[in-house]
Amino acid sequence: MAGNSFGEAFRFTTWGESHGPAIGCVVDGVPPRIPLAEAELQTWLDARKPGQSRFTTQRREPDAVKILSGVFEGQTTGTPVSLLIENQDQRSKDYGDIAEKFRPGHADFTYWQKYGIRDYRGGGRSSARETAMRVAAGGIARKVLDHLLPLPVSIRGALVQMGPHGIDRARWDWGQTQDNPFWCPDPVAAKDWEGFLDGVRKAGSSTGAVIEVVASGVPAGLGEPVYDKLDADLAKAMMSINAVKAVEIGAGLEAAALSGEENADEMRREGNKIIFTSNKAGGVLGGISSGQDVVVRFAVKPTSSILTPRQTVDRQGAETEIVTKGRHDPCVGIRAVPVGEAMMAIVLADHLLRHRAQCGDIAQ
Amino acid sequence: MAGNSFGEAFRFTTWGESHGPAIGCVVDGVPPRIPLAEAELQTWLDARKPGQSRFTTQRREPDAVKILSGVFEGQTTGTPVSLLIENQDQRSKDYGDIAEKFRPGHADFTYWQKYGIRDYRGGGRSSARETAMRVAAGGIARKVLDHLLPLPVSIRGALVQMGPHGIDRARWDWGQTQDNPFWCPDPVAAKDWEGFLDGVRKAGSSTGAVIEVVASGVPAGLGEPVYDKLDADLAKAMMSINAVKAVEIGAGLEAAALSGEENADEMRREGNKIIFTSNKAGGVLGGISSGQDVVVRFAVKPTSSILTPRQTVDRQGAETEIVTKGRHDPCVGIRAVPVGEAMMAIVLADHLLRHRAQCGDIAQ
Amino acid sequence: MAGNSFGEAFRFTTWGESHGPAIGCVVDGVPPRIPLAEAELQTWLDARKPGQSRFTTQRREPDAVKILSGVFEGQTTGTPVSLLIENQDQRSKDYGDIAEKFRPGHADFTYWQKYGIRDYRGGGRSSARETAMRVAAGGIARKVLDHLLPLPVSIRGALVQMGPHGIDRARWDWGQTQDNPFWCPDPVAAKDWEGFLDGVRKAGSSTGAVIEVVASGVPAGLGEPVYDKLDADLAKAMMSINAVKAVEIGAGLEAAALSGEENADEMRREGNKIIFTSNKAGGVLGGISSGQDVVVRFAVKPTSSILTPRQTVDRQGAETEIVTKGRHDPCVGIRAVPVGEAMMAIVLADHLLRHRAQCGDIAQ
Amino acid sequence: MAGNSFGEAFRFTTWGESHGPAIGCVVDGVPPRIPLAEAELQTWLDARKPGQSRFTTQRREPDAVKILSGVFEGQTTGTPVSLLIENQDQRSKDYGDIAEKFRPGHADFTYWQKYGIRDYRGGGRSSARETAMRVAAGGIARKVLDHLLPLPVSIRGALVQMGPHGIDRARWDWGQTQDNPFWCPDPVAAKDWEGFLDGVRKAGSSTGAVIEVVASGVPAGLGEPVYDKLDADLAKAMMSINAVKAVEIGAGLEAAALSGEENADEMRREGNKIIFTSNKAGGVLGGISSGQDVVVRFAVKPTSSILTPRQTVDRQGAETEIVTKGRHDPCVGIRAVPVGEAMMAIVLADHLLRHRAQCGDIAQ
Repeated sequence: MAGNSFGEAFRFTTWGESHGPAIGCVVDGVPPRIPLAEAELQTWLDARKPGQSRFTTQRREPDAVKILSGVFEGQTTGTPVSLLIENQDQRSKDYGDIAEKFRPGHADFTYWQKYGIRDYRGGGRSSARETAMRVAAGGIARKVLDHLLPLPVSIRGALVQMGPHGIDRARWDWGQTQDNPFWCPDPVAAKDWEGFLDGVRKAGSSTGAVIEVVASGVPAGLGEPVYDKLDADLAKAMMSINAVKAVEIGAGLEAAALSGEENADEMRREGNKIIFTSNKAGGVLGGISSGQDVVVRFAVKPTSSILTPRQTVDRQGAETEIVTKGRHDPCVGIRAVPVGEAMMAIVLADHLLRHRAQCGDIAQ
Repeated sequence: MAGNSFGEAFRFTTWGESHGPAIGCVVDGVPPRIPLAEAELQTWLDARKPGQSRFTTQRREPDAVKILSGVFEGQTTGTPVSLLIENQDQRSKDYGDIAEKFRPGHADFTYWQKYGIRDYRGGGRSSARETAMRVAAGGIARKVLDHLLPLPVSIRGALVQMGPHGIDRARWDWGQTQDNPFWCPDPVAAKDWEGFLDGVRKAGSSTGAVIEVVASGVPAGLGEPVYDKLDADLAKAMMSINAVKAVEIGAGLEAAALSGEENADEMRREGNKIIFTSNKAGGVLGGISSGQDVVVRFAVKPTSSILTPRQTVDRQGAETEIVTKGRHDPCVGIRAVPVGEAMMAIVLADHLLRHRAQCGDIAQ
Repeated sequence: MAGNSFGEAFRFTTWGESHGPAIGCVVDGVPPRIPLAEAELQTWLDARKPGQSRFTTQRREPDAVKILSGVFEGQTTGTPVSLLIENQDQRSKDYGDIAEKFRPGHADFTYWQKYGIRDYRGGGRSSARETAMRVAAGGIARKVLDHLLPLPVSIRGALVQMGPHGIDRARWDWGQTQDNPFWCPDPVAAKDWEGFLDGVRKAGSSTGAVIEVVASGVPAGLGEPVYDKLDADLAKAMMSINAVKAVEIGAGLEAAALSGEENADEMRREGNKIIFTSNKAGGVLGGISSGQDVVVRFAVKPTSSILTPRQTVDRQGAETEIVTKGRHDPCVGIRAVPVGEAMMAIVLADHLLRHRAQCGDIAQ
Repeated sequence: MAGNSFGEAFRFTTWGESHGPAIGCVVDGVPPRIPLAEAELQTWLDARKPGQSRFTTQRREPDAVKILSGVFEGQTTGTPVSLLIENQDQRSKDYGDIAEKFRPGHADFTYWQKYGIRDYRGGGRSSARETAMRVAAGGIARKVLDHLLPLPVSIRGALVQMGPHGIDRARWDWGQTQDNPFWCPDPVAAKDWEGFLDGVRKAGSSTGAVIEVVASGVPAGLGEPVYDKLDADLAKAMMSINAVKAVEIGAGLEAAALSGEENADEMRREGNKIIFTSNKAGGVLGGISSGQDVVVRFAVKPTSSILTPRQTVDRQGAETEIVTKGRHDPCVGIRAVPVGEAMMAIVLADHLLRHRAQCGDIAQ
């Protein structure tokens, strides 16, 4: 009800504020007897960690995750897995301005309207720091998929647009996403973005981005019509990430401009497998996975933490100006890539368990 | 868990197949002592009803909704409101082809993969007919908003793009949406679309669309961070509508191309009210309503029910072709407008009650 | 949230008032491809039906259940199963007294306090008539258990105490429960109760009862620690039945008087099966089924609908008296037997699906 | 779904094993701006803490609770409150026997059956240690009740039966519950129990108990018919506590033996308040609170951790014997008193928020 949980059968609940003593989550519903170690989760967290290049915030946190429950002798026991990361680099000294004024484009004003109180330190609960726990929970979800399915599911994300600059899909190479600081699959675009983002950073400005997450190897049959469609849950999952303003499945917005002939993916047989000749649907038909790649894209707005003074009001409603100093990301979309992957893994793991509840079998 | 319910505090569950004896829904959590009559719900259903112009399917159903419970002497009692519409125009004669073959772009294949059985008659549960119950439940949600809030909330939808043809926002006139068969707010575009859609229809083809739904008068403070953000729930609500492939909030995808300066809506004071100088956020900050208009757009793909033969496979996996005959909409997006409005009303009513649970007050 | 649903994976929602046009329920999460016919559900409903002996209310309803969705060509499809029973014997003429006055021991006063409105006709939503839908949903739950488990689960209920008169457990014979109007397993007690209940009935009074429901063949491993323990969900299920005031598992209240030596069921081996030498636990340890018989007992209070005038107040708060006329059960506990069986079946089916979600296998 | 959460609007999730690094819980839905300090929660925890007299287990844990989130400058913020207690006195040395053998009457066997793995150290997740987090969450629930209601709600528990020895209700004095180590309201019984329990303890045996929890000042109108009745949720709450085998509301099991005349609480007027002349209902009618005291009793079985050797089997299914050494409670029911109070507070707080969602007002 109060909204800090996600999923039904694979369900996690996060807690914690940016500058509180710690952040954490509880993952309930993890199947038993899955090998699980902190180091595995740490790998995913390290991918998201800030401070790894000049293009992300210089806040440095070791972000060392601890498993406090639910694992015994290296295996999950079926009881809740509690994860915790201590906040170390809190620097809680000087919040004068943001304690009193609402930063435009931030949640400051709406938390104040809703609760009549807010932990303004570093954004409190609305900070992107919360997404670390999504990544950790996503690491468990990946293990669940690996463990339950006969064939591996691969979940990969890429930045496909930075600010107004898109990639050339003809040059798409997944390997490239590991070789540049942007998760960009197009090496030419990645090169161009360096200069662009340096300019943004030096201007104290920020820019948006579009992320694409692709899950391959997803069995057909996942998703619960009518309201908990696989794509509806993916839309919620991605839209719940900080700063996301749009979610697309498959052809997405472009589907609106297509004709029925262009849009419907035809089906053929290949050996004893049914295949599709295109994937406009993004791997979901009627809310249920078709066995094709599940393809989701989401747009991240530019962070509102910029150096240019902006007009705003204070807690008394008086007009004023604000400049957001501090360590911030010129393109928060970069760090949203592992978060998007994690949410994909979580939605798939949840629907895998849900499918198993009602239908029993999993055909991959 | 099995996905046929939506909402938490205002929660509805739909049931029924396109060509079964009836469809219906149960709405739980409706506050007591709200005047409610079948005729009020019928008004909204009539707006969605097919067969009203040559541009929508010629299936004719009176779609007369009955209230079976939860209302006593003209007022809600706080107990579940059960709504039912009998299916009359079923024409269940001739399903030979779609019983055996999977229509490309439909849920036929995935229902089969998931359940190993499907009611193929008219699309069964995956038919757009299900959306009638969303509209009916949405009618109750509107009453809840009216009854609980001191000021009216207006929820209006418009078709802003048909196929590749967008509107000119400079000509936006809400009044126009009542005067053309497309809910189009731009009279010039509406005129153009007639010819375009006639062409599509005569070609036995179909086209997609983009719908925008705007809620004005929404109080600040609705939405539950972090996972049940107002925009996350709106994304799920809209993506759960048949054929929807993308959802945007406020600036949506375009936010990705903006700079932080362009994107952050500045705040000013107007009398004793705090106002924003722009609405890139679409009325939601940090997952919580800001008091601005809540603006959602979603893209509807073209229906796959077209007259051109399409390649597919049958239940035995053999390659074959299919032509979908029957009465279908050249642009299903048109009828999605009242459905999008209904889902907006439902999400708002749900979050209004949820907010009241935790925070008690509603400041509008 | 508003409380008209039960279960998670096997989840049903009931609606309807005693004297409204109909009552019904929606069962979501039913596994696909289970043969299901109205006649099968009708069998269970007929067992609960009033008016079958002089010992139950003379209200006569055919209570013919209709399946409106979720079944295609005789099999469940995995979509929601909607069930409906029309109310026929409504006699809504003369409610003057109970419209104005609160009947002691009834929900009249509390519905009024909660909602500020109530459908007083025949008890409205608080009528025992609602339990008909539990029995119908329970019929589906039994089918789920039969279909999913390799060995049959038997669920049987018995009246073990009527008013102050208990049975002699040494004479327990399940066959007897079909041969007397009380579901009494002790033929001697059944004989005695006839006279006792005739006296109660002729005096216009009423009496309470204790029901025991036993499920045999339940696989070990069902139940979700810590809050959704199998016995916790059974306690809720039974306590939610109208007029129930106590629930016991296994030794129940008597466990309090035992020593640890007496109470702990020892374990032995029999062939390659592990068995217990006693069943004080009632088949549940740590909230999880052990493979032994699951044994639940619940106490039903005497109905407050009696002919003796009782002191009460009216809607204006003025002191007055009330006599509840009409057709009522001298021992509502009798008709609670099939309802208790149904709730047992529902809890087991729900936990079977939930177990399958997380743990996959079902070992019986 | 996986069962480690309780409540809907006031919802808490517990995690942790008896001998893991820590236990904890996350409480979501706490209204904002409620003063909350660790010391307040500690008070309730100290009441439950073992090792306070010779009658409870000598395991000594400071059980110091930390608030890790959701509180800012001494007030709740509306975001999740995370609580954590480190496990200090773990003594994980010597588990050989219980690692291999199933203790009769414990959850060892059923966890093994369900998950195929178990953390056997100190009972793992099934340990009564988990109840510490219920008490902590209950402390928050009490604050919610205090803060939201105009008049105080008092929630008090008492041991009313130890083994076969009940109290004399004529001597009931709430003050006494603070003056003996048993929470016994009858000073004479308390005296007798000392000798009785010393005997049990010295014999290495154990005994059961009955606890009564009474909430006074509960407003009328709380509870959600039909399935989430206030008494149904209380039954679940209490039955979910370790070792509980029976739950009664008001007259409880005795209601079965009463006549309708005896059982129905008559209503009168006192000043401008409506009162009842008796409270057989235990403060709940039709699942909704009536404004009378809410009265719940539950029976706790004797712990199975006794010094007498018991017959059992080991993991390979071979017959064997087991003696449970270690520090254990001769009467676990004693420490269940604060736990029962906590669960009462939690159920009431949850239903208060739920009521506010649908009905808005709270009339006390």
